[in-house]
Amino acid sequence: MFRKVAASAAFLSTLFVPAMVFAQDGAEAVEAVEAAAPGLDPMFVVNNLWILLAAVLVFIMHLGFSCLEAGLTRSKNTVNILYKNLAIVAIGLLMYGLCGFNLMYPGDAWMADGIFGFAGFGLDPGVDGQTAAYADGAYTYYSDFIFQAMFAATCCTIVSGAVAGRVKLGSFLIFCVFFVGLIYPIIGSWHWGGGWLAERGFHDFAGSTLVHAVGGWGALAGAMVLGPRIGKYVDGKVRPIVGHSMPLAAIGVFLLWFGWYGFNGGSVLSADPDTVSFVFVTTTLAAAAGVLAASVVSIIVSRTPDLSMALNGALAGLVGITAGADVISPLEAVIVGVVAGALVVGAVLFFDRVKIDDPVGALSVHLVCGIWGTLAVGIFGTDKSLGAQFIGVLASAALAFPAAFLFFTLLKKTLGIRVEADDEYKGLDIAEHGQEAYGGFQVFSTQ
Amino acid sequence: MFRKVAASAAFLSTLFVPAMVFAQDGAEAVEAVEAAAPGLDPMFVVNNLWILLAAVLVFIMHLGFSCLEAGLTRSKNTVNILYKNLAIVAIGLLMYGLCGFNLMYPGDAWMADGIFGFAGFGLDPGVDGQTAAYADGAYTYYSDFIFQAMFAATCCTIVSGAVAGRVKLGSFLIFCVFFVGLIYPIIGSWHWGGGWLAERGFHDFAGSTLVHAVGGWGALAGAMVLGPRIGKYVDGKVRPIVGHSMPLAAIGVFLLWFGWYGFNGGSVLSADPDTVSFVFVTTTLAAAAGVLAASVVSIIVSRTPDLSMALNGALAGLVGITAGADVISPLEAVIVGVVAGALVVGAVLFFDRVKIDDPVGALSVHLVCGIWGTLAVGIFGTDKSLGAQFIGVLASAALAFPAAFLFFTLLKKTLGIRVEADDEYKGLDIAEHGQEAYGGFQVFSTQ
Amino acid sequence: MFRKVAASAAFLSTLFVPAMVFAQDGAEAVEAVEAAAPGLDPMFVVNNLWILLAAVLVFIMHLGFSCLEAGLTRSKNTVNILYKNLAIVAIGLLMYGLCGFNLMYPGDAWMADGIFGFAGFGLDPGVDGQTAAYADGAYTYYSDFIFQAMFAATCCTIVSGAVAGRVKLGSFLIFCVFFVGLIYPIIGSWHWGGGWLAERGFHDFAGSTLVHAVGGWGALAGAMVLGPRIGKYVDGKVRPIVGHSMPLAAIGVFLLWFGWYGFNGGSVLSADPDTVSFVFVTTTLAAAAGVLAASVVSIIVSRTPDLSMALNGALAGLVGITAGADVISPLEAVIVGVVAGALVVGAVLFFDRVKIDDPVGALSVHLVCGIWGTLAVGIFGTDKSLGAQFIGVLASAALAFPAAFLFFTLLKKTLGIRVEADDEYKGLDIAEHGQEAYGGFQVFSTQ
Repeated sequence: MFRKVAASAAFLSTLFVPAMVFAQDGAEAVEAVEAAAPGLDPMFVVNNLWILLAAVLVFIMHLGFSCLEAGLTRSKNTVNILYKNLAIVAIGLLMYGLCGFNLMYPGDAWMADGIFGFAGFGLDPGVDGQTAAYADGAYTYYSDFIFQAMFAATCCTIVSGAVAGRVKLGSFLIFCVFFVGLIYPIIGSWHWGGGWLAERGFHDFAGSTLVHAVGGWGALAGAMVLGPRIGKYVDGKVRPIVGHSMPLAAIGVFLLWFGWYGFNGGSVLSADPDTVSFVFVTTTLAAAAGVLAASVVSIIVSRTPDLSMALNGALAGLVGITAGADVISPLEAVIVGVVAGALVVGAVLFFDRVKIDDPVGALSVHLVCGIWGTLAVGIFGTDKSLGAQFIGVLASAALAFPAAFLFFTLLKKTLGIRVEADDEYKGLDIAEHGQEAYGGFQVFSTQ
Repeated sequence: MFRKVAASAAFLSTLFVPAMVFAQDGAEAVEAVEAAAPGLDPMFVVNNLWILLAAVLVFIMHLGFSCLEAGLTRSKNTVNILYKNLAIVAIGLLMYGLCGFNLMYPGDAWMADGIFGFAGFGLDPGVDGQTAAYADGAYTYYSDFIFQAMFAATCCTIVSGAVAGRVKLGSFLIFCVFFVGLIYPIIGSWHWGGGWLAERGFHDFAGSTLVHAVGGWGALAGAMVLGPRIGKYVDGKVRPIVGHSMPLAAIGVFLLWFGWYGFNGGSVLSADPDTVSFVFVTTTLAAAAGVLAASVVSIIVSRTPDLSMALNGALAGLVGITAGADVISPLEAVIVGVVAGALVVGAVLFFDRVKIDDPVGALSVHLVCGIWGTLAVGIFGTDKSLGAQFIGVLASAALAFPAAFLFFTLLKKTLGIRVEADDEYKGLDIAEHGQEAYGGFQVFSTQ
Repeated sequence: MFRKVAASAAFLSTLFVPAMVFAQDGAEAVEAVEAAAPGLDPMFVVNNLWILLAAVLVFIMHLGFSCLEAGLTRSKNTVNILYKNLAIVAIGLLMYGLCGFNLMYPGDAWMADGIFGFAGFGLDPGVDGQTAAYADGAYTYYSDFIFQAMFAATCCTIVSGAVAGRVKLGSFLIFCVFFVGLIYPIIGSWHWGGGWLAERGFHDFAGSTLVHAVGGWGALAGAMVLGPRIGKYVDGKVRPIVGHSMPLAAIGVFLLWFGWYGFNGGSVLSADPDTVSFVFVTTTLAAAAGVLAASVVSIIVSRTPDLSMALNGALAGLVGITAGADVISPLEAVIVGVVAGALVVGAVLFFDRVKIDDPVGALSVHLVCGIWGTLAVGIFGTDKSLGAQFIGVLASAALAFPAAFLFFTLLKKTLGIRVEADDEYKGLDIAEHGQEAYGGFQVFSTQ
């Protein structure tokens, strides 16, 4: 019977042959596979498939970030926030292909051993073909790239939340090119690229520090250089600026949680049943515990159950467990989530007290809980050194924060990074885009 | 080349080895896998992966439920609904880990044979390690737990829809602890846990009864004990209280349908190609038929095509096919969906006639179509007994409804379960949370 | 230990046996699998699983289309748009099961060789059982059906966007029955069904022409026969009618991009690691490039970064790469995306200049970039003929456009296809459904 396969056989036949083998019985199957596809091992196929699916799950986290940030801010900045987040994804993916991947995984091309390396511009599966280059791996070169590329944009999306409502679009996107193209991959190379942190026994499974805290440091730098939104801190008092759509925020958090199964689960780097299922359980329990802890603490603090806090509690638990999802027991994962959920509420209050305006709580979630999660590995993980975890946290901070701070300051002195006060009142949608998020929205009657 | 793998090799090497083996040809592959990973069979890896992915798909159904319930109710209760649904997920997951899993699957630890058993608190993959404990299974202990845990919260989310807009938050969450931690797993143990219903030949593939009708009975009890929302039934007439966002409701239904592929497909409990693909087809056709049937019937009844009915028709078809997705032919699946789609419209009218106020149609979808789907197995399924199906339906009802009714009544007499009339007018968002769902929403101009 | 497996063992045991085998070591595993499941090859299981997962991903694209179309139009037509899109999915799936699948893949049942064939009504896995019928394939009969069925509805959803805000619901749904049940599968049979285009060396990997341009031709016919919305072109000037919810539009685009990994990745028709990962990379880079190109061009044209253009740029890149995602290098994929992103902005201006009113830019995205992507295969793909690509584009157009135009005209002369002007002012939600999308929406305070 003819199917698509037959139709596009010209090009694909060599690739498809193994897949099309279907055996009448086990013995024939093995024989047929061996004959038709020397080198195509089912274990390789399933491992590789999981990495690709994990990449897809991480991709949808970007929609999660967009919805969360848009939902927790006012409707007058919504177009701007959606645009920023879409552009960050595009920039992140392209920059990671252009240079980030080869900065983060320099292979043998270290220039300063374990500190800085660069394997050249662009993507190159190698002379032996895509697969051969990964003969020791569970997935192809391109699977590796796409999974890692989906991660990369995340660190800028975190920054985006903290600077929402007042940052100049163009300047921020230039910052993203720099941060995602240079800073994020260099810090990543120290650990995941096999650099000096990897040799010190630092353990950051899926990036509490390398992704979340690094993004958090950039966010802190951005929020500090920009200053708070007009009207947030008046006469020494905090005046909450409430979000414009809690359903949008909730969609954001659920999608982030959903995608986190790819973020953490894919970081196993294979479909190994024991580890992936274990990581799913610790990830889930930490998130659930974060929700309840943030709820309880926010009830104690503000007398009412606060939805934004409960939502951020889920993210806090997720960020917290990310460093040690593979080495922390389910019960300990609950503890990690409880602490993260409590921390996030305290941190929101703290940053408001020191007048660092963070519209979506990005610092509290990603920076504070990213650090907590990294240290938690030293506390709970067997054979893990709290000292090594501290070193990893400090080292990442020592590059991410000053680099981001200097770059934001440089932008401030040159292009400017903050919109005019008038434009801030008007909202960035009109000021920067000449568009409204809800222009055609009309409610005919209300009950 | 160094990659994450190398960096976290310390802990993971023993687990990763099999995954990292990539063979130059088939024969070497088999040899290498056997040498490096005694016990890691590719069939096990792919089966386990599917169960984990199915769990992720079921997870996102909780966002679907949240969006549907929020969309079909007024904006003044939106924060409350989102909060409730998030908290239910957190409570459901943690309670299932604490005791639900071991109540539902007591193994040898039956106290009353086939009726009640409990294998102890907490999670325990057993002395032989996670995998060995499941040597006869297609997935690990933790995969089993996470897939089942994602199901558990569902039964409370169903209740949530029926009590929306008037229930006290705290009391409802206490009910959830009880219902998801005790009632749902006990009923589940009768069939899926290998208890007395399993021995009677009852067939409920993925839970038309065990999940949906059980949740539906809880919803009926809640709606009855609470009474209708103020203004719903005035002078013997039904005054529809319309939803505040049909896009949100539509997002909810599409996400539920999306997640149902994990709900039903994962219930195959392996990635067996024949069964999973068959289940996908029956599930899809029943949903599609439900949409069209509910549309046609609602046009006959109300002269216009009603979007809420069409949306609920999709869910009706899905709930209806859930019990027999594995034993009902594609053509019969269409019939199951058509009947379910028609039933849901009739049931909505019926519950309004008897003045049971169900804001989102949870009773019509989950209870009525859950029962229909269970009986449909007896009608269409080869070798299935309609009698056994009736027994399963009645037995579940006999525990779920009275238990929920009594517990809600107990809460009513003690903590109270209904908010003050004033708070109901104001909306639960302000009354219970001091927050608005759309506080920062401002439309500048309308066309 | 008893689990669901045990409970439903009666029916499923024969299917589950292979899945339940878990071996103590590699050698035993292979032996056990061979003994228990003659014919169940792990490669088959993983390939089949990927096709099913791809189908799930394509399914959620329908939510993406719904959100995008609803978001980019006014709130008074939202119920209508959501209803239309839900009904299209239901109709598409059922029609594809009834006749579409067997028209598109006639097998040996060609009536006019390579031009028209029909293998009969309904689904039939064949006398040898589902699996045996596909002994030469990587997936089961039902997996093939469900993956292809998810595609089918897409071509009508594309039309839906172009006729939004003025089309009569009933007439449009009749058009869908015709277009998805007859036109789409016949054109598909020419290439994917092994017909005459396949023999000419035409290459359309996942449907830039067969899905997107075919839908686009239907959309053009619909927009032409209907005429523009009242108020769009006044005194020779274009008066933009802005969307009512950019978050909804953004959710739509992100979900479409997300689902596209199944659309393109699943079109590999196996989980072959090399090809699927390659397709993921080209798909991703083209989308990212489309975003940036559309942004830059829209800034040049309108002086401000336009969010709708950036969103449509992502889709443009995705549509553009769809024909050649398997044969175009990553760098060339960026070029394809850049051109598509630029084209989409120009095309939107062009269609407005010629007064063809396309509320969501469906023509610019799906028709224009579908053609571009198909031709790009001739330009960039090794061993691909630009001539053959032209023939494919023209042939599809030669059936899709006249057929759609005639059918829309026929409907116009009989049932009518356009609502009364009064109803258009009022909005289709009230006029056709008697429902509002945001009836219960009330904002209490704004900041």
